[in-house]
Amino acid sequence: MPRFDVIGFDADDTLWQNEQIFIAAQNRLKEILSHYHRPEWIEERLYETEMRNLQHFGYGIKSFALSMIETAVELSEGRVSGHEIQTIIDAARAMLASEVEVITHVPETLTHLAQSYRLIVITKGDLFDQEAKVARSGLGAYFEHIEIVSNKRPENYARLLERLGIAPQRFLMVGNSLRSDILPVLSLGGNAVYIPHHLTWAHEAAEPPFGQVGYYEIEHIGLLPNLLRELAG
Amino acid sequence: MPRFDVIGFDADDTLWQNEQIFIAAQNRLKEILSHYHRPEWIEERLYETEMRNLQHFGYGIKSFALSMIETAVELSEGRVSGHEIQTIIDAARAMLASEVEVITHVPETLTHLAQSYRLIVITKGDLFDQEAKVARSGLGAYFEHIEIVSNKRPENYARLLERLGIAPQRFLMVGNSLRSDILPVLSLGGNAVYIPHHLTWAHEAAEPPFGQVGYYEIEHIGLLPNLLRELAG
Repeated sequence: MPRFDVIGFDADDTLWQNEQIFIAAQNRLKEILSHYHRPEWIEERLYETEMRNLQHFGYGIKSFALSMIETAVELSEGRVSGHEIQTIIDAARAMLASEVEVITHVPETLTHLAQSYRLIVITKGDLFDQEAKVARSGLGAYFEHIEIVSNKRPENYARLLERLGIAPQRFLMVGNSLRSDILPVLSLGGNAVYIPHHLTWAHEAAEPPFGQVGYYEIEHIGLLPNLLRELAG
Repeated sequence: MPRFDVIGFDADDTLWQNEQIFIAAQNRLKEILSHYHRPEWIEERLYETEMRNLQHFGYGIKSFALSMIETAVELSEGRVSGHEIQTIIDAARAMLASEVEVITHVPETLTHLAQSYRLIVITKGDLFDQEAKVARSGLGAYFEHIEIVSNKRPENYARLLERLGIAPQRFLMVGNSLRSDILPVLSLGGNAVYIPHHLTWAHEAAEPPFGQVGYYEIEHIGLLPNLLRELAG
């Protein structure tokens, strides 16, 4: 018998590539500011600006764009030109319009799992961006519910699971962020599969909770049906 | 007998003041650009930029900030300084942090209506901003559900009402935007009360559907209980 009723998937860097788009934009910023500073310093200061702005702006590409602009002003001591600023805004627009690159094994894994489980998406970030990405990914039809949350704290998961009538013990969350996808769900008595992604934003890092009940780790999403078969044993 | 089960409220400029914050920021932009152009021209070009960016950026303060920055670059032909750009970002941050000013008559009206109706909020815009405003308004407890949507098209309302198990005929939407709150709900066979606000974004304007079944207009939200009594009568 399956051990879970519902499987929740993170979206960015779990179902489709995301961080690579941010890194490309960040590299563009380093080029623009290359006559002012070293790339490592730019990266460090951008991260600091992002962290400072998180409470005001939240997650997503528009917040990132505002932080890039602010970093450019700061690191150039106000000397950044209007045209350079425009280049940054254009990079943000390109990020929002960029193709959604579905991760290897995702479609066949979802097809397989949809036969035995109710599938949902729980993704953090900007409502507008995330809806657009679900639509462009072509994956929308696999999911009975798509929830876009402003934060992935335990209380956000608790509220959602309650609203959808899902017992945490019968829920499995799948994602690439220990901090956002794994730890909060385990803290509610739920289950979680960590699938590391080679690019993960520093802000999402945490220690893997090895040995904790309900915690699993696999190398790629194609191994998920196998893990579930073993657990159903 | 009440004619409706559920009353949906728009939030910005229906429950609390919103447009005035955008206008204040826009005035700040006009000051910054005053040595380049006339205020009317700046306003016109900002609106054009906003409309062009809507499909990429969606609604909300961060989108507005990016459009202000882009307008500043464009209208100054790239000569806008880094410090001026920083001033625009600071204005956006101030917008996000600004106090939520609840509109007159709102708390007592909600207290009254909550005795006979299920109340929900349906608001458009940025998930992060809107959640923060609900929290800061102190009005959250009146509502059994708060839905933040990326768009207020008929299909967004239809999906939401279906999900919440509400028949459009038993639903009344209350808001200050004919385009977003009134017309789409009427098109589904629902009911809607238009409460004009003296500041309404040009993008939200439409012709009032005088005489259409299910359409009502009142001067301020304090008159809503009276209207509902008459309709129930």
